[in-house]
Amino acid sequence: MRFFSDNAAAACPAVMAALADANQLDTAYDGDAWSRRLDGAFSVLFEREVRALWVTTGTAANCLGLAALCPPTGAILCHSQAHIEQDEAGAPGFFTHGAKLTLLEGEGAKVSPEAVEEACARVRYDVHQVLPTALSITNATEYGLSYRAAEVAALGEVAARRKLGFHMDGARFANAVAFTGESPAELTWRAGVDVLSFGFVKNGGMSAEALIFFDPDRAEAVPRLRKRAGHLLSKGRFLAAQLLAMVEGGVWLDNARNANRAAQALAEAAGPERLVHPVEANELFVRMTAQEAAAIRAQGYDFYDWAPGEVRLVTSWDQDMAAVEKLARAIAAL
Amino acid sequence: MRFFSDNAAAACPAVMAALADANQLDTAYDGDAWSRRLDGAFSVLFEREVRALWVTTGTAANCLGLAALCPPTGAILCHSQAHIEQDEAGAPGFFTHGAKLTLLEGEGAKVSPEAVEEACARVRYDVHQVLPTALSITNATEYGLSYRAAEVAALGEVAARRKLGFHMDGARFANAVAFTGESPAELTWRAGVDVLSFGFVKNGGMSAEALIFFDPDRAEAVPRLRKRAGHLLSKGRFLAAQLLAMVEGGVWLDNARNANRAAQALAEAAGPERLVHPVEANELFVRMTAQEAAAIRAQGYDFYDWAPGEVRLVTSWDQDMAAVEKLARAIAAL
Amino acid sequence: MRFFSDNAAAACPAVMAALADANQLDTAYDGDAWSRRLDGAFSVLFEREVRALWVTTGTAANCLGLAALCPPTGAILCHSQAHIEQDEAGAPGFFTHGAKLTLLEGEGAKVSPEAVEEACARVRYDVHQVLPTALSITNATEYGLSYRAAEVAALGEVAARRKLGFHMDGARFANAVAFTGESPAELTWRAGVDVLSFGFVKNGGMSAEALIFFDPDRAEAVPRLRKRAGHLLSKGRFLAAQLLAMVEGGVWLDNARNANRAAQALAEAAGPERLVHPVEANELFVRMTAQEAAAIRAQGYDFYDWAPGEVRLVTSWDQDMAAVEKLARAIAAL
Amino acid sequence: MRFFSDNAAAACPAVMAALADANQLDTAYDGDAWSRRLDGAFSVLFEREVRALWVTTGTAANCLGLAALCPPTGAILCHSQAHIEQDEAGAPGFFTHGAKLTLLEGEGAKVSPEAVEEACARVRYDVHQVLPTALSITNATEYGLSYRAAEVAALGEVAARRKLGFHMDGARFANAVAFTGESPAELTWRAGVDVLSFGFVKNGGMSAEALIFFDPDRAEAVPRLRKRAGHLLSKGRFLAAQLLAMVEGGVWLDNARNANRAAQALAEAAGPERLVHPVEANELFVRMTAQEAAAIRAQGYDFYDWAPGEVRLVTSWDQDMAAVEKLARAIAAL
Repeated sequence: MRFFSDNAAAACPAVMAALADANQLDTAYDGDAWSRRLDGAFSVLFEREVRALWVTTGTAANCLGLAALCPPTGAILCHSQAHIEQDEAGAPGFFTHGAKLTLLEGEGAKVSPEAVEEACARVRYDVHQVLPTALSITNATEYGLSYRAAEVAALGEVAARRKLGFHMDGARFANAVAFTGESPAELTWRAGVDVLSFGFVKNGGMSAEALIFFDPDRAEAVPRLRKRAGHLLSKGRFLAAQLLAMVEGGVWLDNARNANRAAQALAEAAGPERLVHPVEANELFVRMTAQEAAAIRAQGYDFYDWAPGEVRLVTSWDQDMAAVEKLARAIAAL
Repeated sequence: MRFFSDNAAAACPAVMAALADANQLDTAYDGDAWSRRLDGAFSVLFEREVRALWVTTGTAANCLGLAALCPPTGAILCHSQAHIEQDEAGAPGFFTHGAKLTLLEGEGAKVSPEAVEEACARVRYDVHQVLPTALSITNATEYGLSYRAAEVAALGEVAARRKLGFHMDGARFANAVAFTGESPAELTWRAGVDVLSFGFVKNGGMSAEALIFFDPDRAEAVPRLRKRAGHLLSKGRFLAAQLLAMVEGGVWLDNARNANRAAQALAEAAGPERLVHPVEANELFVRMTAQEAAAIRAQGYDFYDWAPGEVRLVTSWDQDMAAVEKLARAIAAL
Repeated sequence: MRFFSDNAAAACPAVMAALADANQLDTAYDGDAWSRRLDGAFSVLFEREVRALWVTTGTAANCLGLAALCPPTGAILCHSQAHIEQDEAGAPGFFTHGAKLTLLEGEGAKVSPEAVEEACARVRYDVHQVLPTALSITNATEYGLSYRAAEVAALGEVAARRKLGFHMDGARFANAVAFTGESPAELTWRAGVDVLSFGFVKNGGMSAEALIFFDPDRAEAVPRLRKRAGHLLSKGRFLAAQLLAMVEGGVWLDNARNANRAAQALAEAAGPERLVHPVEANELFVRMTAQEAAAIRAQGYDFYDWAPGEVRLVTSWDQDMAAVEKLARAIAAL
Repeated sequence: MRFFSDNAAAACPAVMAALADANQLDTAYDGDAWSRRLDGAFSVLFEREVRALWVTTGTAANCLGLAALCPPTGAILCHSQAHIEQDEAGAPGFFTHGAKLTLLEGEGAKVSPEAVEEACARVRYDVHQVLPTALSITNATEYGLSYRAAEVAALGEVAARRKLGFHMDGARFANAVAFTGESPAELTWRAGVDVLSFGFVKNGGMSAEALIFFDPDRAEAVPRLRKRAGHLLSKGRFLAAQLLAMVEGGVWLDNARNANRAAQALAEAAGPERLVHPVEANELFVRMTAQEAAAIRAQGYDFYDWAPGEVRLVTSWDQDMAAVEKLARAIAAL
């Protein structure tokens, strides 16, 4: 059983059914009946009017969102371990035409208001330096921590004061909602977030992510940017249908809860001593010797070696709880 | 019945079945079993070793291909009616970091060797002018004409002499193969083409196009460019599976033949007087007064008004021949 | 005597004297006493508050100006023979991050309101096409014609209606002012021009051009763009001093009048039959057989072969009128 | 007397004389007699064939050099205090179309081979991460330290092993040569440097810097990039003449020695306790209370407050040694 990444899991039944339903002639691009329902569906979910666009990858969602917030001459503040810095092959530089990522530190890939404030305070606001223009955080973080609404709001307060557009990379936003029990609205726009990359693929989608603008004005140029980046699919209904199937039926939250539950089971088995970070979503970073890791793998489980003496396990929406509990027992028995 | 665009048609059964088959855990990105079969499958089709990458749109395929052929300081020669000029929102400028499209004229959106030669001859090869570096043609063209292999080869000869990388936008390549009866190899690399955007979506795919490099060395940087443009989907197997389903079973050619057959039936009904361009693929440009168009629409058919006194009809892989023939009779009866 | 280009002439005495005067310690970049006087000096000249920035080349002036008017997703309408299209190595694409030049035709490199209107009318204002966002004209044109204020105003009217930022490449603006006798204000902002590249180097400067924004708000981001493009010289006083020396003393207009006078003398000698374009600045395009050109060159004059049977002569601010008249007689004697 | 920056000093007499000599008609751009002598003059200085291009700013020199070494998809390793990171308004991102600066730490803004090696070792060489492609160091550093040839060579060794193009920002290269007594060749290409931004403006030039390619092949595309960035001045002879005047007569080294001598006098006066960094060029970072700084300023000297309790003094090529010694006594008397 593979615990490499939620990226690689199957698509969930609701998504597959939606694809079959959408397999009929309709208007091309995003003029179809499904795409036209997106704004409405996400506006309900977020309890305010939003603009929602489908894209096929988290990188595209993040970078189109950042391009809407930051001009080529600006800087985006983010954690040094942020996905946009570590795992997008420089896509932010491409989509923003050369804006800069200014890196912050913080436990568990979390950004603190103090770190944001300090980074801004260090800058001379003259023509020689690159000015901070946006802030991007990841929720849940790359190390599986979930920001609470109050934490996001504290960051939102600095962002507003420093006039930073506020972006949230929500590749695992569903897991953060499931873990914190706080509402999508509380974790985003009520806390000052301007743009959210709302991930579906890791959570049971096939190929659709949602890019959400809480201020529709901010979204104005984005459909054009999406097209110009080659991201306007001609049969867009197949993307919209995936999102609707997961959002309108609550599947997105059920799936995330399943993945989180599996992660909690493993976390309890591992115990606090072994856990490098608190487990607040569907990722675990576990201290384990090479021999221990080998012993677990010998029982048919696979996962990444993250660092010497540390492995990463990621649980998925479709993880079979019986198998997970067997693994939990194996870990507990180490 | 809609004859607006092949862009909007349903996905074909082979594709839907392939998606279901691929719906299982595998390695993320393009490390899965399906993606790893792509090079092989297309190498068989093209009778030589090729490098094949999946992308989700024709715009992405075209522009990644062009970025591999043309530096930011270069120019890409293309027809003034080319899709890359007219319908990609400036994507070539985005992907190439500002390379220029130099526009050529020619009947039916066809580029002639003479036009290419003249465009090159006009340029002073100094530091002040933008140097032609690539040539891009569309086959079948935006007006539904198919280049024969000998025509492509004549262009390939100029391209080689003028050191132009040679790109073919094959959004309707299948229709050109079906119409000319010439092989994929003859219409491309044997005629000097370096890179092909091989379209599947208009031809019954859901969301996958193939970008083919005939010289694998030219493709070296492209996987990185694809990732940097946000086009590396994490569940890539769902794209690869679509392509394999259409290529390995010959579905791509069957579908194109169906669409072409429908177009031919309508073309015969319209007669040479009404046809603005020869019908050599699945698009028809038909002279029709506003009243005539209204009369046809009143019978339940829909299509674009292309220009005053001219309409465009596009046939699809799944067009029902009975309905097509009814439309043909209606046109003939005008 | 060379009539190749005004680009290559010496710097005028006022400029050399100003450089010597400025050769003292002052604040770096544009914080010095000379640079701080620029806005004022040009505001007087243009009879309204303007923002004036020094740059070292016409290409930089043009492209920073265009970058202020046109986003990466837009198109700039210009003549097919415009300097920005023909002689700037793709710099507009670089500075705008890939915006497009849409080419217009017109006699003598002049753009007509009708051509602008038609180019806009051809565009579908959807997400697939690149939208016209700016208009750029050259005054005097690349073929030595001068727009009158009424002609500029007619273009300004279309630009306003079509919401196009309006840029004037004034590499030879001084010559146009000298020829038309119309004021700098009439030829620019009163006629709707937003940004002017005001050329000094061809007119007796050493290395300084002025970029003028008639709406200071439009200039807001430009100092940053200038720095980011490596165009913020640390000893900026040496550029500002050149501009002040030419503007405050009226040298700019005297120099242009000298060059125009030389051109008129040659034009009269050539006679209307030989002139390809009316001579309205300091450039002449003259019909001449190869033998005739050789005969003139044998007398010690040099100039470009522009096209078969056509030569180009450019006069400069410092052209010795005795020598010019000798050349005039030689041409008249052909 | 101002010790703010060498950026603001006057141009030296040799430069002013050379400008006067060059003030005659010649071929435009870099086709003139002076520009054509540049390669030769710098080849003599560097004891090997080099390609030398004039530009007007250090930012342009640095960024054109980096663009020649690093594609848009790459990363440039540099110190976190490097000028390209701190003071160029994101120009490296502009000229490279979005390549990334990866920041290293090290005392006195010096980069160590270990830091370079570690930064490379941290990278997964896959398609998701940005790959290190170039290394840039500043000599003398932003804190006034000079790399010795052996130190550069140790970095050159890592650069070669890791396949990094090696760029040196030599805004104060002359000061480093003067301080170390090592030859231009030893400090650059013999130590593995590929490209040098050789600064003249801070050292008595007016507006010309030299961009030196030790491998002329690497320079091939650069004249075109320079033009495309608006950096090809039409009266280039005025730039070339400045460089020739300083290089051919040894003025560059005399000027640097003068500036270094002034810095050494101040450094001795300050004493090791007050010096934040060793003084190895023409910059001093001196510990001083606010009251002490005020006392010095009251005697007519001006300089930057660099950090709480720390001031920066920069000496220039033209600093009057009598005045410098008076300042030295004032500092010693604190």
